[in-house]
Amino acid sequence: MPPHTQGRRSVAAAHQPTAQKEVIDLRPPRGTRDFPPEDKRLQAWLFDHFAAVTQSFGFEMVDYPVLESEALFIRKAGEEIVDQLYNFEACYKGDKGGRRVALRPELTPSLARLVLSAGAGRPLPLKWAAVGQCWRYERSTRGRRREHYQWNLDVVGVAGVEAEAELLAALVAFFRRVGLGPADVGIRVSTRALLGAVLEGAGVPAAAHPAIYVAVDRADKLPIAAVEAELGALRVPPAAIDALLRTLRIRDVGALSEVLPPDSPAARDLVVLFDLAAAYGIADWLHFDAGVVRGLAYYTGIVFEGFDRAGALRAVCGGGRYDRLLSSLGGADLPCAGFGFGDAVIVELLRDRGLLPDLGRRVDDVVHALEESLRPQACAAAAALRAKGRSVELVLEPKRMKWVLKHAERCGAARLVLLAPEEWARGEIKVKDLSSREERMVVGVEGLCQLE
Amino acid sequence: MPPHTQGRRSVAAAHQPTAQKEVIDLRPPRGTRDFPPEDKRLQAWLFDHFAAVTQSFGFEMVDYPVLESEALFIRKAGEEIVDQLYNFEACYKGDKGGRRVALRPELTPSLARLVLSAGAGRPLPLKWAAVGQCWRYERSTRGRRREHYQWNLDVVGVAGVEAEAELLAALVAFFRRVGLGPADVGIRVSTRALLGAVLEGAGVPAAAHPAIYVAVDRADKLPIAAVEAELGALRVPPAAIDALLRTLRIRDVGALSEVLPPDSPAARDLVVLFDLAAAYGIADWLHFDAGVVRGLAYYTGIVFEGFDRAGALRAVCGGGRYDRLLSSLGGADLPCAGFGFGDAVIVELLRDRGLLPDLGRRVDDVVHALEESLRPQACAAAAALRAKGRSVELVLEPKRMKWVLKHAERCGAARLVLLAPEEWARGEIKVKDLSSREERMVVGVEGLCQLE
Repeated sequence: MPPHTQGRRSVAAAHQPTAQKEVIDLRPPRGTRDFPPEDKRLQAWLFDHFAAVTQSFGFEMVDYPVLESEALFIRKAGEEIVDQLYNFEACYKGDKGGRRVALRPELTPSLARLVLSAGAGRPLPLKWAAVGQCWRYERSTRGRRREHYQWNLDVVGVAGVEAEAELLAALVAFFRRVGLGPADVGIRVSTRALLGAVLEGAGVPAAAHPAIYVAVDRADKLPIAAVEAELGALRVPPAAIDALLRTLRIRDVGALSEVLPPDSPAARDLVVLFDLAAAYGIADWLHFDAGVVRGLAYYTGIVFEGFDRAGALRAVCGGGRYDRLLSSLGGADLPCAGFGFGDAVIVELLRDRGLLPDLGRRVDDVVHALEESLRPQACAAAAALRAKGRSVELVLEPKRMKWVLKHAERCGAARLVLLAPEEWARGEIKVKDLSSREERMVVGVEGLCQLE
Repeated sequence: MPPHTQGRRSVAAAHQPTAQKEVIDLRPPRGTRDFPPEDKRLQAWLFDHFAAVTQSFGFEMVDYPVLESEALFIRKAGEEIVDQLYNFEACYKGDKGGRRVALRPELTPSLARLVLSAGAGRPLPLKWAAVGQCWRYERSTRGRRREHYQWNLDVVGVAGVEAEAELLAALVAFFRRVGLGPADVGIRVSTRALLGAVLEGAGVPAAAHPAIYVAVDRADKLPIAAVEAELGALRVPPAAIDALLRTLRIRDVGALSEVLPPDSPAARDLVVLFDLAAAYGIADWLHFDAGVVRGLAYYTGIVFEGFDRAGALRAVCGGGRYDRLLSSLGGADLPCAGFGFGDAVIVELLRDRGLLPDLGRRVDDVVHALEESLRPQACAAAAALRAKGRSVELVLEPKRMKWVLKHAERCGAARLVLLAPEEWARGEIKVKDLSSREERMVVGVEGLCQLE
């Protein structure tokens, strides 16, 4: 065995620039995150819950490139998501004909692209799921991140609100899994067909509706006068603005008759959806709220958003029906509904409620040779335990027992496996259970593997 | 229940451009991949094996932004990876002071950055793992992809080759898990200290070595005269070129004495490493080969690469020791060793060997209401089965039994749960086991949940 350099005992915090190279900024780029082990464990915990609900509801995972053609995302309805597109020229290095590309701001347009390409010819419905990183570019970022991960579920090919009911049930299943109840989180539900009927009644042509929905979505954040001004700029007639604002104040599905005929498809969709929600056992999570519009131009029917009942946070998740997105990409339309669920607000909410788990590092065994001459035996013991399916941290340098005990604690190890010269002379290995403090001797690596 | 539009039965393949919008290219951007469900299942299978070995060897998962400061990757040693950097200006939109950024070409510089930032003050060694997408930009791409995923394991803070032995054991553990044996895959091992000693003996200063290693790495792909010319252009004296080329031909660790003194650290490292490999039980996978250099400038010691013994494919994986990367980022150096393992070559290799698994869609139950009036009961049954932990595909539209049976087959369902009017009138639900074809009746949703 070679002599070992024990080296520094921890990573030096000092930043020592050298002459050869400009000093590198050690922070991740502005608005982005690193995931050191503890953050990555939390992310894995969250994503495991996303995956479990995905599987529980029979959705299939898919994925798309984080970099897409810019044209996929450009829409002319004044959406914030399009204004903040993280786009650039892929061809700046000089090869002609390169396309303008963008780091995707959301997953739905990519889903639509995949439905029309790889999805072509598949039997419907498609129930597809994805978890992917999404990007936005803001000139001034004060604490707002430029990237987040989003979990999406989408149902393609189901025209009825049975699709939305399934999506809402999946959201509630997620909330329940992470320990949230209907007193913590609610889901506001409405339909754009309601505002659509009001606008149509006021003579506003359908092509103008998406930009109006995007403007109305800001009603939450802007003073009412600003929204009125914005709608005026979109040439919405004053009578239609009045009707819109009156409709947005409705908080009770029974009051819909004030603005809709009793046989309207919008009212029928809502009634059926709330009946289905009762069958799923999720009625106490849902509320009708005509003020929910969502800020994406492509929604055409039911829209919904999850919210924190304490009122402290932005929307937890949001989604709806988008029956005309495929044709905007040049394909034949299919009925679609889906939701996006970000990784940021939910973690804030769970932290507020004390529901984030305590996720330490975990291994089954720490294996240590008390003398370097026993290193080959330690390697063999580690290899045998790993082959058995155990997670093993092998101490790779000569270390004192005090360090090894501390290290085993840091690793969250269940057992300590020690190769000591005297015991090994008898062919024995010491195994210490770190919770019970019990010690036992086993004969050889075979004896070790027969434990438990 | 509302009347249902049965709609088209599959996604239309036809591409129907509309007048309003330019036609979107439905392919993913050049050199990138979509992952429809079957491809995503294969990726998940591969990544699960990466994760299992990561856990088995006691490594902790971390992650970094896919977008990094360009400066993190720029090195002046003629590496292909730097020439093909997928970089651009983050500030093209006009805000001043933006940094030049790049889609990361590899994970190791980000690891080094994280070690110096979030890693500061942590006890050593760090054993960190990551699976991340890496990018390159080539002007002409003929079948070569611009992105791939890479699994990395890195040990930070261990100066001895015990770190490399652990990394090699992890590689072999992966190969064994996916069904490959030492007759399929080998790992070539050498050390840059060997070429370093030869160059030093010929009077070439250490600062010139990294660029020479990068040039030597091309020896595999270029005619020997081209390599000699490249080394000449780097001002390597002819005697040193001769000594280098002679050394590269050595295929037997016993022949090292021809170029190294017997007490050289390079030879000692190799002897210890091969002894440790024997202790781990992986000796038959490893071969000494002085011609292994690897194309990254930062390696300083042991280097290795996994290869397909049939000789048909590029390197399966590669890694080595890089003890001076941290100081190049302005930090204090620590001994480091690691490897990168791509998702492309291994899949080609496994496909060649017939070792790719047959991964169909899988759900536990398909739940179907034979009449729309029973939809609430079907929703309740699905909800109850899901709450029990089962994966449930609920049929969301009125469908004929023939379609439902076909659909259950496509979903890989284990059971079919049917709500039929006559049976439900008696409070009963029919459950059909789809492998045994056995049918049984249960009483209500409670009876359903008590099955098994």
